[in-house]
Amino acid sequence: MSEPKSADRQRIVLRSLERRRVSESQPSAASTDEIAVEEPLEIRLAGDTFATIMRTPGDDHVLTAGFLYSEGIIQGLADLGKIAHCGRPTDAGYGNLVDVAPGPGTVLAPERVTERRGTIVSSACGVCGRERIDDLIGRLGRVPNTGTISSEAVAASVERLARAQRSFARTGAMHGALALSADGEELASGEDVGRHNAVDKVVGKLLFAELLTADRAVAQVLAVSGRTSFEIIQKAAAARMAVVVSVSAPTSLAIDTADALGVTLAGFARGDAFNLYTHPERVRPA
Amino acid sequence: MSEPKSADRQRIVLRSLERRRVSESQPSAASTDEIAVEEPLEIRLAGDTFATIMRTPGDDHVLTAGFLYSEGIIQGLADLGKIAHCGRPTDAGYGNLVDVAPGPGTVLAPERVTERRGTIVSSACGVCGRERIDDLIGRLGRVPNTGTISSEAVAASVERLARAQRSFARTGAMHGALALSADGEELASGEDVGRHNAVDKVVGKLLFAELLTADRAVAQVLAVSGRTSFEIIQKAAAARMAVVVSVSAPTSLAIDTADALGVTLAGFARGDAFNLYTHPERVRPA
Repeated sequence: MSEPKSADRQRIVLRSLERRRVSESQPSAASTDEIAVEEPLEIRLAGDTFATIMRTPGDDHVLTAGFLYSEGIIQGLADLGKIAHCGRPTDAGYGNLVDVAPGPGTVLAPERVTERRGTIVSSACGVCGRERIDDLIGRLGRVPNTGTISSEAVAASVERLARAQRSFARTGAMHGALALSADGEELASGEDVGRHNAVDKVVGKLLFAELLTADRAVAQVLAVSGRTSFEIIQKAAAARMAVVVSVSAPTSLAIDTADALGVTLAGFARGDAFNLYTHPERVRPA
Repeated sequence: MSEPKSADRQRIVLRSLERRRVSESQPSAASTDEIAVEEPLEIRLAGDTFATIMRTPGDDHVLTAGFLYSEGIIQGLADLGKIAHCGRPTDAGYGNLVDVAPGPGTVLAPERVTERRGTIVSSACGVCGRERIDDLIGRLGRVPNTGTISSEAVAASVERLARAQRSFARTGAMHGALALSADGEELASGEDVGRHNAVDKVVGKLLFAELLTADRAVAQVLAVSGRTSFEIIQKAAAARMAVVVSVSAPTSLAIDTADALGVTLAGFARGDAFNLYTHPERVRPA
């Protein structure tokens, strides 16, 4: 089973549904909404269950590749053999189970992640944000400093994200992410009911487009629709994106992680203004 | 280590931070923001790691109790012995590791959950939304029909939630949840960087206040700040709340789950109006 053809994609991502609008000042009225589809996806590595995530179907190959890359399970496309849907597709026309075969000579080793987490768990304070950051620095290093970006480009990135969020405009339930190059070229976008998945879809698309390899990362800016948490910074840093811009607020651990990994973090981007929380030196003033 | 005193709570939930506002039309200015704290919490059951979740510290006892109740690990307070922070607290004054001891005669058995998930996984289509719903019906049954609610009360619940979201107002990064009785009494509220955690904190507070037992559920309405996904409906149904109201959109699986479990699901609640997606018979017109 391969990815759905584009003619089938809208049916998979969105569902039409009768609903009733209730208002004290207006008689209630039935009409039709478009609803974002949410379904579980089980990801198996060579037959063994690795993770089950709630996601919007339709981009399972890029979602899976991006997720495995962000988590450090694969280092690049060469580590991936085949990503195949297995089992029967649901009535809606998509499968909820993918099996990932390793590339030639590769062993997909989720225990690397488990062991690393095991180390964290055994420490004095249980798990700590600070140790999660140290762990990421050990795995990813700091994001390379590849020059500056204009404040106009930072502000514009979230407006361009909003235009790319076609399913959000129709449902109000989808998060979006958009990767841009340093000179503002739109490289990949993703939408999903889960914030993390939208970013993983972007990372997967960059991988398949060969815009993200061990020694070359074309995308520099990641614009996201929701709040910025630790895991969003983790995924951006894994894909070597040096600037993360959100329309909303960051958490404390997102700020600390961005600071430690060399990521410029902007938030509350509205119109031509935004807040800069970390590494302001990368942003050129207007 | 017990829960922090209220004098310490603000320092734990919010952190002050210097940031710079950049605007093309205004000179950039440094000022101080309040940031929502995000830290990992490891939950152990009688010494064995059960889950690690990213959460806002300060309400770990109610979060843990609510999470275990929503997941079906405990059936009530009697199943809980002691919830204790262990390990050294971090510099910020809270611990990131809780160990849950079972109540007298109770065995906390996460394998019950695992087994159930194992059943799902072995099915033809991998995991399916439909099977997740059937699984919940088997575990929880349908939410009892305990009468109707006025459309005014539905609309008012999200306005009351907004007033309860004190940390959101200061950070923009916190999700909120509020439980109300059928006659509009505010019973419990929660805030967290994670949507699910805000609901689990509410469920935990209902448990500790003895407002939620096997044969008595006082809370009828759950108002949530974010989008409504499958897991939000799961948690509401586990706590026998018959009406879920959101300011935002539901997903397809949230709607299907609410429909199957007998939960009235309202979305896009703004001013005096909202959409009704499931079980409209429970809402009395104005």
